[in-house]
Amino acid sequence: MKTILKTERVLSSEVVQRVGEEITVSGWLHKKRDLGGVTFLILRDRHGLVQALVEEPHEREKLRGLQVGSILTLKGVVAEDKRAVGGAEIHRPRITVEVPVEFPSPIEIDKPIDHRPETLDTLLEWRVLNIRNPGEMSVWRIQASVGDAIREFLTQHEFVEFHSPKLLAGSTEGGAEVFHLDYFGKEATLAQSAQFYKQIMVASLERVFEFGSTYRAEPSTTTRHMTEFITIDVEMGFISGMAELTELMSALINHVCETVWRKHERELQALHATRPVLAEKFPEITVQDLHELVFRETGQDFRLEKDPAPFEERWICEYSAKHWGSEAVFVTEFPASGMKFYHYRSETNPAVAERADLIFCGVEIITGSRREHRYHKLIEQLMAAGGDPESPGFKYYLQAFQYGMPSHGGFGLGLERLTQRLIGFRNVKEAALFPRDMNRLAP
Amino acid sequence: MKTILKTERVLSSEVVQRVGEEITVSGWLHKKRDLGGVTFLILRDRHGLVQALVEEPHEREKLRGLQVGSILTLKGVVAEDKRAVGGAEIHRPRITVEVPVEFPSPIEIDKPIDHRPETLDTLLEWRVLNIRNPGEMSVWRIQASVGDAIREFLTQHEFVEFHSPKLLAGSTEGGAEVFHLDYFGKEATLAQSAQFYKQIMVASLERVFEFGSTYRAEPSTTTRHMTEFITIDVEMGFISGMAELTELMSALINHVCETVWRKHERELQALHATRPVLAEKFPEITVQDLHELVFRETGQDFRLEKDPAPFEERWICEYSAKHWGSEAVFVTEFPASGMKFYHYRSETNPAVAERADLIFCGVEIITGSRREHRYHKLIEQLMAAGGDPESPGFKYYLQAFQYGMPSHGGFGLGLERLTQRLIGFRNVKEAALFPRDMNRLAP
Repeated sequence: MKTILKTERVLSSEVVQRVGEEITVSGWLHKKRDLGGVTFLILRDRHGLVQALVEEPHEREKLRGLQVGSILTLKGVVAEDKRAVGGAEIHRPRITVEVPVEFPSPIEIDKPIDHRPETLDTLLEWRVLNIRNPGEMSVWRIQASVGDAIREFLTQHEFVEFHSPKLLAGSTEGGAEVFHLDYFGKEATLAQSAQFYKQIMVASLERVFEFGSTYRAEPSTTTRHMTEFITIDVEMGFISGMAELTELMSALINHVCETVWRKHERELQALHATRPVLAEKFPEITVQDLHELVFRETGQDFRLEKDPAPFEERWICEYSAKHWGSEAVFVTEFPASGMKFYHYRSETNPAVAERADLIFCGVEIITGSRREHRYHKLIEQLMAAGGDPESPGFKYYLQAFQYGMPSHGGFGLGLERLTQRLIGFRNVKEAALFPRDMNRLAP
Repeated sequence: MKTILKTERVLSSEVVQRVGEEITVSGWLHKKRDLGGVTFLILRDRHGLVQALVEEPHEREKLRGLQVGSILTLKGVVAEDKRAVGGAEIHRPRITVEVPVEFPSPIEIDKPIDHRPETLDTLLEWRVLNIRNPGEMSVWRIQASVGDAIREFLTQHEFVEFHSPKLLAGSTEGGAEVFHLDYFGKEATLAQSAQFYKQIMVASLERVFEFGSTYRAEPSTTTRHMTEFITIDVEMGFISGMAELTELMSALINHVCETVWRKHERELQALHATRPVLAEKFPEITVQDLHELVFRETGQDFRLEKDPAPFEERWICEYSAKHWGSEAVFVTEFPASGMKFYHYRSETNPAVAERADLIFCGVEIITGSRREHRYHKLIEQLMAAGGDPESPGFKYYLQAFQYGMPSHGGFGLGLERLTQRLIGFRNVKEAALFPRDMNRLAP
């Protein structure tokens, strides 16, 4: 690749390599301290922070009244200084005030992100500013690397990325949690998942994935739910059962953790993240066995629940880390009573669906299942669930099966939840740039 | 990366390397021809096609009544055969009918995609099936490679991918083309662009990009417009003017063309695509000069138009290919009367905005501009355009500027339009998997 965008600007991370030279740096005023006859400046750019020492009165004068966020360009000589951020300091800079900021910042952006005085609500209200906190910056860089690692792994295994529409004529997952909108006088809904499209695509490219927005009109404000989030939807044709899916999910999550910890170890440690303990192939436990184990070990009784409870999700990861060497655990054999119409009912035990959810460091981040691929059986299951095969929501989906679908399955992985647990955030909204919930439509 | 998902299944592209061996292939019945005592089969899988010759009566019997799309597994010996697709043929296969299809296909999926008898409307109505056409399969593989090449280039140049919400409290671009929806009793809109968010992100990571869904309630069904599409939004801080942007766009589009033609030359030729002639740095022409040139050369008069007309977009690319050696051309210096409030007004000529649109092989695929980054100037321009700085649509956006934004600019690139022109499709909907327009909400 050709080198482009060359400028004389030196980035903060490169300053220490230029000791003795005169260089130019530009960035945001991050901190300013007046100490009698000198001013210490810290400038922020996309690579981090750099310190400068201003002594000349006419240069110090330029800084008077400037608030955090002002855009400055400094031209000065680099001196080694072990005490300075980055190990060097710029001396005797000539300062150009590119953009002065006159308003004092309403939140502090120079604190470690787990030592901020603000509540999460305040931080989200001021998200536009708190993304300037260097700790926050690393969160979004880590999230981008999570996406890159997923894409790299899937592409390597011949999965092809596609894009499906989010404006739909019907709903895919059913339930009340659907957003409706007016579409030129007709009604449209926002996609609750890419489920139908990824299955349809199996009949073309066999192995596909999408990074797509997902919408749930979830009337709640828990730490686990948002109304809009990014799902990585993966689907694979010609599987013989769940084994290929759990193999794929295990290898994918291992690859993501390895990649992200390799690229961002320093940043993750600064965020107090701990590297998860992961088996090469994640252990499995059935929903029923999980309920029994939790009851036996803790006395808490979830044995009538169809799904694992949040408490059980946290508990099983701790238990599994200790006993099975893995903070990622598959929960399997979900009762057929709670299954989606497109799930594949186990042939050996028709009371359960062929499904495996991945609990990762205490939170469910993946729902995976084998799908019913036989046309007549699928219609039967759809109608049993109260669906109308002729409705626009189902009609085109069913075409794929009418004209031949192989055995297949896949999964959906929440990007924000995965980022959340990799970093160790308590609330998924900390891992979403501009999160949406029933009370939050901005920023 | 560890090898996973190993099976004994051989893919169509690998068959020719296995001459003399007994192998197993699986796929969709793509074609079947009975010739007296033998049946020729063509099977399709994700890599392409493979031919088999069935002679045994009890194996031929299994094929009776099977329609295109049926899922078959064949176990047989590979014989070299130069006349066969892929240069080899499977002999004496034992056939397993995994999934029989009983319905004859309503459209033909074995024709070259420019020789299909169906209209585009019919093809889109049956999109679920026509994506099984091998020519169509290569379109979606090419589109995925376009995305990969863009991402690779931008990541290499330190742009970080982010995700912004599409559910908004207000509209970003103004105008009537906004979808509205009920959001827990409040009104929300669907994002017309990631414009505000990508600018906000500049103050954190400086160089950012997003692949995001974009919504326009466009009450039209032209060959150029859809109501939902994928925009690659790119934004870069600390630029000195338009030069860095046009340099970046030129290098990006060159990289995409090189990568896609390197990876997909055979497929692109089969689609009758021609490799675009591109200068390293694309030539530029002002809107006014374009109008004058077109008037002088063709007699067609668009001199009162603010933007290039579709005719001019086609014409200038042909002209530029011949005279300037580039089928990609920047159109610059758009009249300030048509500018967005966030555009940067040229300092040397306040009558024009600092903007450059990229016309690529006859169609505008990129809109790029420098943005006004000075808080007070931006407020002034917003209010002059009739906007209310306190409205939820603008309030958070303006915070970024109030607390310091560097000189910056960026552009939005339509993924489907770029794919369309790379392949040479007449209608952008041919380059969208499941396109949306005012009459089309399904499949």
